[in-house]
Amino acid sequence: MIVILKPGVSIESMGELVDFIQDRGLRIGRIVRGDGRTVIGLLGEEQRIPIDRLRAFEGVEDVVPVERPFKLVGRELQPEDTVVRGRGFAVGGGGFTVIAGPCAVESKSQILECARFLKAQGADVLRGGAYKPRTSPYAFQGMEIEGLELLAHAREETGLAIITEVVSAEDVEKVGEFADILQVGSRNMQNSRLLRRVGKSDRPVFLKRGQSATLEEFLLAAEYVVAEGNANVMLCERGIRTFENYTRNTLDIAAVPLLKQLSHLPVVVDPSHATGRRDLVVPLAVAALAAGADGVMVEVHPDPENALSDGPQSLTFEQFTEMMGDLVRVREALRPHLAEV
Amino acid sequence: MIVILKPGVSIESMGELVDFIQDRGLRIGRIVRGDGRTVIGLLGEEQRIPIDRLRAFEGVEDVVPVERPFKLVGRELQPEDTVVRGRGFAVGGGGFTVIAGPCAVESKSQILECARFLKAQGADVLRGGAYKPRTSPYAFQGMEIEGLELLAHAREETGLAIITEVVSAEDVEKVGEFADILQVGSRNMQNSRLLRRVGKSDRPVFLKRGQSATLEEFLLAAEYVVAEGNANVMLCERGIRTFENYTRNTLDIAAVPLLKQLSHLPVVVDPSHATGRRDLVVPLAVAALAAGADGVMVEVHPDPENALSDGPQSLTFEQFTEMMGDLVRVREALRPHLAEV
Amino acid sequence: MIVILKPGVSIESMGELVDFIQDRGLRIGRIVRGDGRTVIGLLGEEQRIPIDRLRAFEGVEDVVPVERPFKLVGRELQPEDTVVRGRGFAVGGGGFTVIAGPCAVESKSQILECARFLKAQGADVLRGGAYKPRTSPYAFQGMEIEGLELLAHAREETGLAIITEVVSAEDVEKVGEFADILQVGSRNMQNSRLLRRVGKSDRPVFLKRGQSATLEEFLLAAEYVVAEGNANVMLCERGIRTFENYTRNTLDIAAVPLLKQLSHLPVVVDPSHATGRRDLVVPLAVAALAAGADGVMVEVHPDPENALSDGPQSLTFEQFTEMMGDLVRVREALRPHLAEV
Amino acid sequence: MIVILKPGVSIESMGELVDFIQDRGLRIGRIVRGDGRTVIGLLGEEQRIPIDRLRAFEGVEDVVPVERPFKLVGRELQPEDTVVRGRGFAVGGGGFTVIAGPCAVESKSQILECARFLKAQGADVLRGGAYKPRTSPYAFQGMEIEGLELLAHAREETGLAIITEVVSAEDVEKVGEFADILQVGSRNMQNSRLLRRVGKSDRPVFLKRGQSATLEEFLLAAEYVVAEGNANVMLCERGIRTFENYTRNTLDIAAVPLLKQLSHLPVVVDPSHATGRRDLVVPLAVAALAAGADGVMVEVHPDPENALSDGPQSLTFEQFTEMMGDLVRVREALRPHLAEV
Repeated sequence: MIVILKPGVSIESMGELVDFIQDRGLRIGRIVRGDGRTVIGLLGEEQRIPIDRLRAFEGVEDVVPVERPFKLVGRELQPEDTVVRGRGFAVGGGGFTVIAGPCAVESKSQILECARFLKAQGADVLRGGAYKPRTSPYAFQGMEIEGLELLAHAREETGLAIITEVVSAEDVEKVGEFADILQVGSRNMQNSRLLRRVGKSDRPVFLKRGQSATLEEFLLAAEYVVAEGNANVMLCERGIRTFENYTRNTLDIAAVPLLKQLSHLPVVVDPSHATGRRDLVVPLAVAALAAGADGVMVEVHPDPENALSDGPQSLTFEQFTEMMGDLVRVREALRPHLAEV
Repeated sequence: MIVILKPGVSIESMGELVDFIQDRGLRIGRIVRGDGRTVIGLLGEEQRIPIDRLRAFEGVEDVVPVERPFKLVGRELQPEDTVVRGRGFAVGGGGFTVIAGPCAVESKSQILECARFLKAQGADVLRGGAYKPRTSPYAFQGMEIEGLELLAHAREETGLAIITEVVSAEDVEKVGEFADILQVGSRNMQNSRLLRRVGKSDRPVFLKRGQSATLEEFLLAAEYVVAEGNANVMLCERGIRTFENYTRNTLDIAAVPLLKQLSHLPVVVDPSHATGRRDLVVPLAVAALAAGADGVMVEVHPDPENALSDGPQSLTFEQFTEMMGDLVRVREALRPHLAEV
Repeated sequence: MIVILKPGVSIESMGELVDFIQDRGLRIGRIVRGDGRTVIGLLGEEQRIPIDRLRAFEGVEDVVPVERPFKLVGRELQPEDTVVRGRGFAVGGGGFTVIAGPCAVESKSQILECARFLKAQGADVLRGGAYKPRTSPYAFQGMEIEGLELLAHAREETGLAIITEVVSAEDVEKVGEFADILQVGSRNMQNSRLLRRVGKSDRPVFLKRGQSATLEEFLLAAEYVVAEGNANVMLCERGIRTFENYTRNTLDIAAVPLLKQLSHLPVVVDPSHATGRRDLVVPLAVAALAAGADGVMVEVHPDPENALSDGPQSLTFEQFTEMMGDLVRVREALRPHLAEV
Repeated sequence: MIVILKPGVSIESMGELVDFIQDRGLRIGRIVRGDGRTVIGLLGEEQRIPIDRLRAFEGVEDVVPVERPFKLVGRELQPEDTVVRGRGFAVGGGGFTVIAGPCAVESKSQILECARFLKAQGADVLRGGAYKPRTSPYAFQGMEIEGLELLAHAREETGLAIITEVVSAEDVEKVGEFADILQVGSRNMQNSRLLRRVGKSDRPVFLKRGQSATLEEFLLAAEYVVAEGNANVMLCERGIRTFENYTRNTLDIAAVPLLKQLSHLPVVVDPSHATGRRDLVVPLAVAALAAGADGVMVEVHPDPENALSDGPQSLTFEQFTEMMGDLVRVREALRPHLAEV
């Protein structure tokens, strides 16, 4: 940790600070004097002193951490890629996984029709929301337990693994009885109670980035899960909130190679939520593959015009088929050692 | 609702759309043809058709709602101000309420020293976190139940009402046994399960704006609470996330008069979290009053350099006293009919 | 144009508004009454009434334009792609153009070494800054006229067309004597004097998106140029400013397919400025191609560690070669009808 | 300057870096080894090495400047406030200056009516745009030279100093013949040619913050002006671009006390452009005073509904009078030593 002091800080203030640091078992590397500012380098395990404690000192202008705040999810501790495996799927390790399905489970025929189509097209995992966190209390909130049962039925029929969102710590156990993968949504990325609870589950966790979360905050959210013992975490970039409003969010495509550098966890892109417009989903799914993602999650609906939620961003079956063709061609061009998408 | 069609939309597509709308009991106002685009006005209760359903039609370019999506919290349904009252405090209705205390309850002596000082200075409500949602799993997460007991003890000693955060739906009942006001934090502004649960509580709710929530999303979060039957909701502007990083967040001061226009709920400003820097808290607290806020929430600590969290943004006792002086002077200047802060 | 009135607007206010509209030669389509609000549809050429004039009326709550504010650059007026052609290059129309070179021209040997390498690798246009707009007055501001002469020399040697930035209306003529393409940088995207002046030049214009410009503002800036008579405009997405600070900017990859939908102008991506980090340039260049871009502009330097500006984001020759390989493979996969990059 | 190296950097890479630093006359303070990272402190004048040069080294992870990049505008070099004085006005030094007038000069009667009213109400400076930078080429671009003449006429009649915008370096001389204060608008905050040219003028400069400029970039833009010899610069906060779209921009009220800390230059707030809505201008003007601003700039129009630009955000005469009353009351409460606004 580097501590930059204000110009003209008193000897007494600096003395208090030095005592504080040494009391916590760190040593002062050396005092470097630049033009008008004093700078202190700390030696030792910097996590022993929370950064805010140092910033609270009157004489301190700024504190710069040298170590990253996340540990378990970082590449430094584990250089090799994590591969998350389950019922017929593997995410990470060089392949490219396609997770697809409707935003929300709406009926038996809807989810079955989708699941059969997606299985035939080569998708790896079926998505479908049973509990829907919505901005308005008056919007459709999901079929809940009945939706979970329909997902399980679709799995029986097709063999596809299923992923669905869990919105509260209270529900982790119940949802885990049905789902192969537990999704934690954007709105809950910093719901620490929920993160801890899924960290105690034996189900893989699919963690979506909060819409205004920095990459560091995103990785710290994943750290909450892994710190509880569940190492099977996938990171999902799904767009961040910016001033641009032609699209629902702004897909942060650079997050893909960056997260792959910083962390060993697999990185999946959701171009459906990132844009909110189905005409942009296919080009951005292919771009995600080109940028190095381990997979995509897309919304597909047999009849988007009658979808109960997210119709405008749901692919038609025809568009999904087109996307799979492009993905196969680009995967072969960039990752020729792989046998299939 | 206004539906703008794409140029060159086919008669068939328009026919399907018209059928869809009329099937749901709305009428088509009239078809207005601008230069190259067709525009349809819907007559009737527009909430019968979710906006996304219309957007999902292939021929639809955009849909513009005419009505606001929030109802119960809006000024249109209730023109007069809501005043939230409790043990010795009232928020809204022209007064100015001061909520203050440490970020986290740390010890009996810390919270008692704070409470006595604040009572003497004329603060209205004592804040203190017992459950702390933190970005990192390695940061101090609060004293939990023991913290709640210390807060209750401080209330007994001073008579100050207490406000504390509840971080999960599971905890609402337990925290409600201790707290006079339940705080829902920024990270949980869209935790709909939690919003619903506090909506069933008989405690007033203090709802903080999410760091990237629009005002509409903020008001819809409040709508979740009120829709469950709890009308005692206070809105707290606490800074939004922007590109500027000299401060922790950017205080959206314009949100104060805007929220007062849109809603009848009281509006409180938290300049401590908005800036993250104690040297900015006093001017922004006074600015909040000048902009029309119903109160402020500030962090105060007897010894900020040793605070376990948020030390850099906690006021010293001396700064708090200075702030109260400025607030009294400006309140007298702008709201002379009030007897006291 | 749709005009939404405030609830409870008086008959007098509405009368004034109706007179105002009819005086300007537009007709009132019909008055649609929703629940509590009055909505007016305007028929005729909506550009006759600036939107702000309507918004300024006391009784008006909001005004929604139905037509896009840009005309000449829009797809509606010209459905077919514009292809910008010059000395050995063509941008748009299905190909993929590579523009590359150092951030700034620094010396004869530097620019020549670069130009020869890039020519050999198959790049289409050579970039190099002679006038550098910098954030700090103390940073290197470019070699100015001498830099232009060195660029012209490199063109003679290699045959590569050259692109360089023009920073002021005063300089358009002089820079145009040397450059094949005039670049207007992000900081000047709304410098209307400069836009008009390059609009009168016979050189193609390469317009970079401002770092907080919406797509609509970006297209209106291009409209300034085209409205003066210069139809050879290329649009360059180079990252927008967001809260995320791991990267210099956030590449708005969705802008690529969106701009292609909205406009007939070619769209080029600059992953160097978008990220500020050379290790991210290659994956994002390939992603740009996958998303449908007409080309990329990248910074390359024979010795990035000694570059006078933008060293951290400049590709080494080795990285550039790697990028070209990936681009060729993906182009063949997605645009197989093209003979070469 | 603090240089943080990547983990596992080679001895060779570090050797090259050390040579590079020492060649430029700086010394290596000492090598501090944290957990897994090497950190170097530089001693000497850090501006000798541009930060990007260090970041460009392969082994460098990050570089943290210790000194601020701006010098002449900083408080460290000049602790006492700059007071900008001219024809009957003074900005800075504890007073509160009111700059007001229409967005654009539209006619002789409009500007004269405004000027007389504002003079009578106690405003200090008359604003009015003669050259209007607009987003669309089809919007009203100002009366140009004729507008300047009308402003000069209004000055003769009322004695009010006049401020008007200069949009291009070419125009500085001509506009300076008329204006008492030269305004550089948001869109031109990084137009370095223009900044340098007004830096050579003997007129005070009113510099508006770019809509996505950080405070550091804003101060560096002011540094461009002062570095050319013109020390009479005023800084104007006018709102930044964020995701929130209920208002035109988001007023960064915290920028007021922050800029006052970082710089000795006066700070003025423009609540008209910050919000785009006249109903928010008065509360935010009063908030600006409460936050410590040296003045406000507001748009006023005798007939906002017929304004040629910015009608929605222009105050009526009645609202302006109300604002002046509030400002006087709050100024007396907070700055009682001053005789008048």
